[in-house]
Amino acid sequence: MSDKVKVAIVGASGYTGAETMRVLINHPHTEIVALTADRKAGMGIGEVYSHLEGFGLPDMVKLDEVDWSEIDVAFCCLPHGTSQETIRELPSHLKIIDLSADFRFSDVETYAALYGHEHYAPELQSEAAYGLTEINREQIAKARLVACPGCYPTSVQLPLVPLVESGKVLTEDIIIDSKTGVSGAGRAAKEGMLFSEVGEGIHAYGVATHRHGPEIEQGLGKAAGRDVIVNFTPHLIPMNRGILSSIYVKVAEGESADSLRTHLDDFYKDAPFVRIAAKGVSPKTRDVRGSNLCVISVFEDRVPGRVIVLSAIDNLTKGSSGQAVQNMNLMMGIEETIGLNLVPLFP
Amino acid sequence: MSDKVKVAIVGASGYTGAETMRVLINHPHTEIVALTADRKAGMGIGEVYSHLEGFGLPDMVKLDEVDWSEIDVAFCCLPHGTSQETIRELPSHLKIIDLSADFRFSDVETYAALYGHEHYAPELQSEAAYGLTEINREQIAKARLVACPGCYPTSVQLPLVPLVESGKVLTEDIIIDSKTGVSGAGRAAKEGMLFSEVGEGIHAYGVATHRHGPEIEQGLGKAAGRDVIVNFTPHLIPMNRGILSSIYVKVAEGESADSLRTHLDDFYKDAPFVRIAAKGVSPKTRDVRGSNLCVISVFEDRVPGRVIVLSAIDNLTKGSSGQAVQNMNLMMGIEETIGLNLVPLFP
Amino acid sequence: MSDKVKVAIVGASGYTGAETMRVLINHPHTEIVALTADRKAGMGIGEVYSHLEGFGLPDMVKLDEVDWSEIDVAFCCLPHGTSQETIRELPSHLKIIDLSADFRFSDVETYAALYGHEHYAPELQSEAAYGLTEINREQIAKARLVACPGCYPTSVQLPLVPLVESGKVLTEDIIIDSKTGVSGAGRAAKEGMLFSEVGEGIHAYGVATHRHGPEIEQGLGKAAGRDVIVNFTPHLIPMNRGILSSIYVKVAEGESADSLRTHLDDFYKDAPFVRIAAKGVSPKTRDVRGSNLCVISVFEDRVPGRVIVLSAIDNLTKGSSGQAVQNMNLMMGIEETIGLNLVPLFP
Amino acid sequence: MSDKVKVAIVGASGYTGAETMRVLINHPHTEIVALTADRKAGMGIGEVYSHLEGFGLPDMVKLDEVDWSEIDVAFCCLPHGTSQETIRELPSHLKIIDLSADFRFSDVETYAALYGHEHYAPELQSEAAYGLTEINREQIAKARLVACPGCYPTSVQLPLVPLVESGKVLTEDIIIDSKTGVSGAGRAAKEGMLFSEVGEGIHAYGVATHRHGPEIEQGLGKAAGRDVIVNFTPHLIPMNRGILSSIYVKVAEGESADSLRTHLDDFYKDAPFVRIAAKGVSPKTRDVRGSNLCVISVFEDRVPGRVIVLSAIDNLTKGSSGQAVQNMNLMMGIEETIGLNLVPLFP
Repeated sequence: MSDKVKVAIVGASGYTGAETMRVLINHPHTEIVALTADRKAGMGIGEVYSHLEGFGLPDMVKLDEVDWSEIDVAFCCLPHGTSQETIRELPSHLKIIDLSADFRFSDVETYAALYGHEHYAPELQSEAAYGLTEINREQIAKARLVACPGCYPTSVQLPLVPLVESGKVLTEDIIIDSKTGVSGAGRAAKEGMLFSEVGEGIHAYGVATHRHGPEIEQGLGKAAGRDVIVNFTPHLIPMNRGILSSIYVKVAEGESADSLRTHLDDFYKDAPFVRIAAKGVSPKTRDVRGSNLCVISVFEDRVPGRVIVLSAIDNLTKGSSGQAVQNMNLMMGIEETIGLNLVPLFP
Repeated sequence: MSDKVKVAIVGASGYTGAETMRVLINHPHTEIVALTADRKAGMGIGEVYSHLEGFGLPDMVKLDEVDWSEIDVAFCCLPHGTSQETIRELPSHLKIIDLSADFRFSDVETYAALYGHEHYAPELQSEAAYGLTEINREQIAKARLVACPGCYPTSVQLPLVPLVESGKVLTEDIIIDSKTGVSGAGRAAKEGMLFSEVGEGIHAYGVATHRHGPEIEQGLGKAAGRDVIVNFTPHLIPMNRGILSSIYVKVAEGESADSLRTHLDDFYKDAPFVRIAAKGVSPKTRDVRGSNLCVISVFEDRVPGRVIVLSAIDNLTKGSSGQAVQNMNLMMGIEETIGLNLVPLFP
Repeated sequence: MSDKVKVAIVGASGYTGAETMRVLINHPHTEIVALTADRKAGMGIGEVYSHLEGFGLPDMVKLDEVDWSEIDVAFCCLPHGTSQETIRELPSHLKIIDLSADFRFSDVETYAALYGHEHYAPELQSEAAYGLTEINREQIAKARLVACPGCYPTSVQLPLVPLVESGKVLTEDIIIDSKTGVSGAGRAAKEGMLFSEVGEGIHAYGVATHRHGPEIEQGLGKAAGRDVIVNFTPHLIPMNRGILSSIYVKVAEGESADSLRTHLDDFYKDAPFVRIAAKGVSPKTRDVRGSNLCVISVFEDRVPGRVIVLSAIDNLTKGSSGQAVQNMNLMMGIEETIGLNLVPLFP
Repeated sequence: MSDKVKVAIVGASGYTGAETMRVLINHPHTEIVALTADRKAGMGIGEVYSHLEGFGLPDMVKLDEVDWSEIDVAFCCLPHGTSQETIRELPSHLKIIDLSADFRFSDVETYAALYGHEHYAPELQSEAAYGLTEINREQIAKARLVACPGCYPTSVQLPLVPLVESGKVLTEDIIIDSKTGVSGAGRAAKEGMLFSEVGEGIHAYGVATHRHGPEIEQGLGKAAGRDVIVNFTPHLIPMNRGILSSIYVKVAEGESADSLRTHLDDFYKDAPFVRIAAKGVSPKTRDVRGSNLCVISVFEDRVPGRVIVLSAIDNLTKGSSGQAVQNMNLMMGIEETIGLNLVPLFP
């Protein structure tokens, strides 16, 4: 055990904390040595997450009860705002993988405008690498602090960044209609997330105001080398896990669904977790449930000059904890796929 | 009872047949006197639809066992193709409300191209009125044969026709991302519609090829006075009922979400079943479940010059049987809302 | 309008309040003139229940803003404890239909033991009629205060009371395994009722301790003329509405599934909302969704001397608001079925 | 690779076939070398199960295209009847793990009575071991043919066999109320398993006639040393995976929930996949989804002399393919837990 990476999960009582545990339990090169929670400190894992009982996990403790000297990596699964306050107090020998929104924006003023307060740790922000693994491997590998992307931005940028960067897709008039499972809203008790409120129906939310819109724009803007504004409309679906993003784009002169598919196939030929579906195959979130996979499909549109790009991920795995572990592998010099050969659960 | 409208439901064993019964059972001016089914002829209603047992409905019979002389109105709930073959044999004193796709296309060649065979009753096609009630009231009122719109086209045309007709929305670059409950696929036993295959996930289907795309284009084209091509991408959602259409459009110079909302408010001010949501309110399919309502909302987009239009209906009610009964009311000189004050069922 | 029964709904912001509105909106002899809520006072109905917008309902007000002089009937949809405190302050001309647990126990000490505090209105308790409509019609008809049964006790007592009362079923060894939809837990935001916590799974809760157990025992004890103790084990199911109770009983010498079914058929021959399923037919909660029906079925067991009784209701309708309106009809001299011919919504 | 166990999955196109693949893909000591299907022969795995694409699985072939000489173990995932016909033609060097009902009954006449035809391979029946792993380890380890138990019988026998065998639970009056997810019905297209038919509701089926009843009776009878008759009532729940069995039993003089719990704790102290929940904890199917675990809980009943036993498994994993792989491990001398450390997927 002595040469295993020692991991702490900070804010372990939420869904991303639980999912990080689920993934790491079978990771051969890590050992979970601390779980922190605030209100749930002192509880055994079975009291917080009964499905994780019996896998040898430690009890929840307060943040200040952790002996950081024995820990190599911290996964921060805290709410935004809290995350930056916590991380800036952690010792500097730690590698940190943050799953919140706190370090996603390279421009702290954009953060402040969206999240309603000055950034508490701007100096850390400037060192943070954006953890969209397949796009940003080199920076992640040498970073001390990695900011994992939002679940929606992961599902959107994986297909769009290579297409925008190559100029095959125009940056005008990008329409992103995303659909998510309810676990994306977290475990906090809110009326709007009760089974009876979200079962058996669908609605859009955060229309034109959701904070993942600007995060997507940052990524596409960087890929394009100029500012990009997109439509981003998220919808809530009566399922636990999964994001399907249906993306409607205009292509550059001479491009087509086929040429885009070929480009993505080539771009991701060495990416073990991104799969480009064969022509005519529509990705299902069921194809990726519980896995670290992203499946992408490209269709010709009826409207001339337009193409439809569909992308499916599990919001908690590739959209959050799975990608976080993938980043940890890179940061610690472990092979990228170790611990992540998670076969989708269907039905 | 003698002055009640005598109704037959042809093809009563499918979901639209069942929904037509559900609506008509409490309609004060109708009486269901015949239910036809093919393989299920001879069965009592309880054997076919146990939820409809005990409401005094007749047994299922074969089509040729019906005494048409005593019937005023036939609702045809047959699959496409079968519907036109059946209807052309029915006596001409009958008013007919067809819920299939068979008489939706004014151009029989469009029908043939989409449905793979020559139209069997082109002479009837030319007399059929398109049953999008709020848009086509006058024609419907005097028609003998009404072709009820598809469920998706209902959800899309109710918001878009007034906006396109008035020139407030451009006909280029209309993106329609629709999400439907599973009942839209009917009651036929198909692997792809098993609970285990469609529960807990989402996928797009019929991408760029679904036959409701051209139906929408016909309606918008007529409203615009020129050909229109739209993106139409339907998705299957793990819920029984409901369609949410998320429609992304460009507005004419000087128009905005507010001006569009005002126009719709005014256009539908006397329409009892169409409700324009207040600014900032996102419609839910839960708001209309089991009812004949359509709720429409308009949002400003982040992308300049674009507007987001959201529309929610129950696919089986306003999207099918409810609208069919609304049309019957018009055709028979009954007040439009009679029998249709169906309060949404939530949760 | 002047001769309509004027109704107030006290505690209108919960699910039973909403369901009472849904039922009463189409009731021809009532008018909803006041809706009270505590934290939500001042809100329009659309802000509290968007599915009820557009049906002419009044805004939510505080309890002390109501002019009780114009009101005939109050439906109390408050939590237990609060209900008795509120009701004892209401003017005595009001007929009151209470949907809470507060007046269900004829013995206030049983109430105190179960609910953890002395009863605040024991004098009202002694005048309250137990509102299990089909069993207690006469008392309800002349009562001023009716205590509607719990949802589970409704589903269990409708089949069992006639069987126990007639001595056909033994009172020893009654096992009641009930399954409920999530709406039974109400609209309060609790972690355990989040979609992600109760979707895609099942568990038992309140095992051997649920307070509906003693309520069932009270009813069966009264029917038997002696104390009865039952097993009552409720389970939470990922659906919005519905209770299925699977009841395992021993029959008296000479009795069988057939003789029990015949007895129930006879007992309920004039009960418009109770239906005894044909031999071999298993009731589904889908058969009663949104309706005031109870469907009961009786099966022979493999174990000699035992019989299986199955019963399905909608927990919010027959299990709560529907039965409440049925009681109101009796209390106000209105025909029992008026406003309650609710056709089940399927699928 | 050469020292890996070579596996064929016969009848790979159903859910148990898919689940066997899911489990074996990450098993370090096996290699899947053949997948057979009848109608789907010739298809790639992605056409049959898109969630399994990309994991290096072979294409589907016809049974007679398999080179059996290179295969060590066959998992038979065929329908009952077909399974016995197929297995008797397979070469005798193969170890066979059958997931159908075909070899579960030691008495072929019981099989014939329940399944409606003479057994086609009675000689194989007599050599088959009953694959309830924790109860029958030694026989399984030396068997060539193992008959995996039904999903319900697994969930019921794991808790009951030790309790009946020890005489702590009486064999009279055992009531078993089980609830299953829809995947238990398999992938065949049947009207009754459509999403719209089983979503949002619950019903009992196979009441007093389900064939898993006699299988349970066989197991309990063997444990008791005398014939046992039980009530077994299965219910269908709107979820994909999971079985919860709620079992109501009478205890022997001097026994209690506590003494039963202690006995089970002791009995299963070395069983890695059976977990006895702490007093007062109710097992959830969510705690075991996708895993090979069985969680059991014991509660005192209100009815004196009775105890409630609850048991949760995943019907496709511990209830089928997971237990099958566990048996394979025993048969091949592999450590029992290898490949089966599957962490439950929640939410």
